[in-house]
Amino acid sequence: MEMDLNAQVKKACFLQRLKDFPSKLKDGVTKRIKHVQKFGKDDPRRIIHSIKVGLSLTLVSMLYYVRPLYNSFGVSGMWAILTVVVVSEFTVGGTLSKGLNRAFATLIAGALGVGAVHLARLCGHKGEPIVLGILVFSLGAAATFSRFFPRIKQRYDYGALIFILTFSMVAVSGYRTDEILVIAYQRLSTILIGGTICILVSIFVFPVWAGEDLHKMVANNIIKLANSIEGFDGEYFPSSEKTSKETNSSVREYKSILTSKSTEDTLANLARWEPGHGRFRLRHPWTKYLKIAGLVRQCAIHFEVLNGYVLSDAKAPQDFISKIQEPCSIMSREAGEALKSIAKSIKTMSRYHVCVNTHIKNSKNAIENLRLALKLSFPETEKDLLEIIPGVTMASTLIDIVSYVEKISEAVDEFSVLAHFKENLDPKLSPELGQHHLLHKGTVKPVLEGDNEEECNNSPHVVIAVHDEQPPTVNENNVNLGAEKTTVVV
Amino acid sequence: MEMDLNAQVKKACFLQRLKDFPSKLKDGVTKRIKHVQKFGKDDPRRIIHSIKVGLSLTLVSMLYYVRPLYNSFGVSGMWAILTVVVVSEFTVGGTLSKGLNRAFATLIAGALGVGAVHLARLCGHKGEPIVLGILVFSLGAAATFSRFFPRIKQRYDYGALIFILTFSMVAVSGYRTDEILVIAYQRLSTILIGGTICILVSIFVFPVWAGEDLHKMVANNIIKLANSIEGFDGEYFPSSEKTSKETNSSVREYKSILTSKSTEDTLANLARWEPGHGRFRLRHPWTKYLKIAGLVRQCAIHFEVLNGYVLSDAKAPQDFISKIQEPCSIMSREAGEALKSIAKSIKTMSRYHVCVNTHIKNSKNAIENLRLALKLSFPETEKDLLEIIPGVTMASTLIDIVSYVEKISEAVDEFSVLAHFKENLDPKLSPELGQHHLLHKGTVKPVLEGDNEEECNNSPHVVIAVHDEQPPTVNENNVNLGAEKTTVVV
Repeated sequence: MEMDLNAQVKKACFLQRLKDFPSKLKDGVTKRIKHVQKFGKDDPRRIIHSIKVGLSLTLVSMLYYVRPLYNSFGVSGMWAILTVVVVSEFTVGGTLSKGLNRAFATLIAGALGVGAVHLARLCGHKGEPIVLGILVFSLGAAATFSRFFPRIKQRYDYGALIFILTFSMVAVSGYRTDEILVIAYQRLSTILIGGTICILVSIFVFPVWAGEDLHKMVANNIIKLANSIEGFDGEYFPSSEKTSKETNSSVREYKSILTSKSTEDTLANLARWEPGHGRFRLRHPWTKYLKIAGLVRQCAIHFEVLNGYVLSDAKAPQDFISKIQEPCSIMSREAGEALKSIAKSIKTMSRYHVCVNTHIKNSKNAIENLRLALKLSFPETEKDLLEIIPGVTMASTLIDIVSYVEKISEAVDEFSVLAHFKENLDPKLSPELGQHHLLHKGTVKPVLEGDNEEECNNSPHVVIAVHDEQPPTVNENNVNLGAEKTTVVV
Repeated sequence: MEMDLNAQVKKACFLQRLKDFPSKLKDGVTKRIKHVQKFGKDDPRRIIHSIKVGLSLTLVSMLYYVRPLYNSFGVSGMWAILTVVVVSEFTVGGTLSKGLNRAFATLIAGALGVGAVHLARLCGHKGEPIVLGILVFSLGAAATFSRFFPRIKQRYDYGALIFILTFSMVAVSGYRTDEILVIAYQRLSTILIGGTICILVSIFVFPVWAGEDLHKMVANNIIKLANSIEGFDGEYFPSSEKTSKETNSSVREYKSILTSKSTEDTLANLARWEPGHGRFRLRHPWTKYLKIAGLVRQCAIHFEVLNGYVLSDAKAPQDFISKIQEPCSIMSREAGEALKSIAKSIKTMSRYHVCVNTHIKNSKNAIENLRLALKLSFPETEKDLLEIIPGVTMASTLIDIVSYVEKISEAVDEFSVLAHFKENLDPKLSPELGQHHLLHKGTVKPVLEGDNEEECNNSPHVVIAVHDEQPPTVNENNVNLGAEKTTVVV
């Protein structure tokens, strides 16, 4: 009886599942389609790249479809197809790197292969395969070994692979054919056709430049740092204006920077293959981005430690925290603003050093205030000393971060000269600079927040501009103009 | 006259240079050769791999050299050469991954390509290239798009590439030949021959296992942490016994861990393709290594901060440092010993939790002593408080590192169960455990250093084993046996 009931239940379940299957399948398929759509929308360049590959394939198929072309190249046309599929990379740099590597490696290995076949023929019919075998073995092994060297691996890995491939093919197939030169010529020319189609499509149809990606990535990583430090302020001092929910997402933005090194290295490597484009000249200092990115990562490492203090249960007592809150908040905010200005400077490729230096100076002033606050909150007992340690170490990490922000600013400043950033004298400040030479006279000129919003937005401080009525002298270096201004944070 | 002299000097210089040229050339070449030799000696597997590739190439050339083989495969033999060159990877996992991807992608794309040709022929002579073109364009674009999805990119990227390649080739060349099935069969069989040769050579001639590399890399990274923490002790407290020169090299060993993520990910990915080998079963928990490696990297991040204190000029006053030196040194040493035991446990694939837990417990005790020392060195003035901050933050970072060492130990413990590590009861301690149930009785039993040297070497502490004369109960979990012992550090 029970068995019977059990079987009935099972049957009902099975029928229900069978009934649900179409709708479940439909749900699943819809979900998949939506996922794919979202993935494409996230970066539409992916869709464009796919269409570009399809286009190159269609163009190269003409070698087969068009009778006169097929008559001259024959089945060698498939090497063009192979080249298109293998050489089509997402970025222009990737395509150029692979295309040029393939072309030159084929040329050199093809010539050597033809030479090897002629050499082997001198050794008679029996000696021929032995000589060819020895040559293929030794050159193949040597080229494989060369691929381990970091410098070759980085730039010519694909070339070495194609060298082995072409040399082996030409040398070995030369044993069975007398038309080796014709075959080599057809193969080389079809590879050149395929490579040229790829490179042209890559450069002229919605190009994706590795250099531009690297440029944007470095700037965006700096913005991530800025968001993280501002988010940290809101999370560690929850009494701040921002709600904790708002900051929660931004405070962990730095995490992706910790593991971005390999992407940056690859992009910098590919960028060096690219011709000048847009704002970037031919010999743009691509490797300098890696230096800045390294400092940004060092800074992110300190954020990881800072994040440990946010998540930790062992926090300093509330009254101690409230004492150091103000200078810490100002430090975070000003460091964040400095980072944003640096990122803006990179993004627009113009120099904002006045603005950046002002913010860095403000955050350094806040460090002094923090020291003062620490002095004032001198612990009364030994127990208190132990209790405030988490707060003290947090503040110390924050100071380290400010010093890294300064290092990043210096590196970007140095880079901006090499990369020919355009000079950007603050539109609000520069006329002033032209009229009065800034020195020591003591007129206090409060600047309204909206006034220099475009340059140093969201920074509620009063600039005490110290004027002099002598005619202005030209600052030749144009560096550290902002350092001459005394800024009081309110 | 002067001109004449100048010209003479120049001529003499030129002649000298010409004279020096052969010896300079010889020096340069000798230097290069030595560099290459050293590079090969650093990892002889590189040389072996190069020879293996040469061997595979020679084997596959037989398809051309041996008349009966050439009669049956013809020029399709070059696909075997191509396969060997492209599929031969350094590790077994890499070769298997590429070989299997290539084989299955060729099979599927070949079948689809033949189908596409038949479909296109139904549309008449004029419609044929149009239908083929549309199919090649759309399937090529779709497969290219699929390569962007992380899950496909990670494991089947090469398969997708070969799919596009084979499908395009078969479909396009099918337009010009009627022997499409014969060609497809020859191509597939030669690819299978090439792939099989590669895989066999890769597995049976001095195999390089990605899994073993990953296993060793994780263990070595833990040893690097151990060396760094011990080196730090010698560098931050130069009065220690070790000379600063000796420690200088080891204290920066952790640096490479900061950027090792991509290598670990790649190795873990390739390891999953490998069959069971040596100590590793087929379903060895490879992904768990990434969890441990993540914790090791987190710990290395804290070392980066610690290193900042070593390099910093703003050190705490000497008398404060000498007060916290002892507990800090013990913390570093015990944490280093714990890390070494963990690394040994991974390397030998046996569990050393008693030993590890003892060291962790010792370093935790040292944390308590550090707190005591901090209490005792209570600053007298506000100025003193500011001065000791660098020392306090250093000590605080050291505490964080100890907590990470504990996390690593827990992760390895969890992993050791999944990976079937063999149980290693300390030969010296386990009989003791069997005879007396450790609880609270208070017999002090000093252990000589040489006594348990094999298990916990270099740890000069006295174990106060607290015995109980009841019959022993079996500890079912076998975890934290060491936590029941009270250890006093002398």
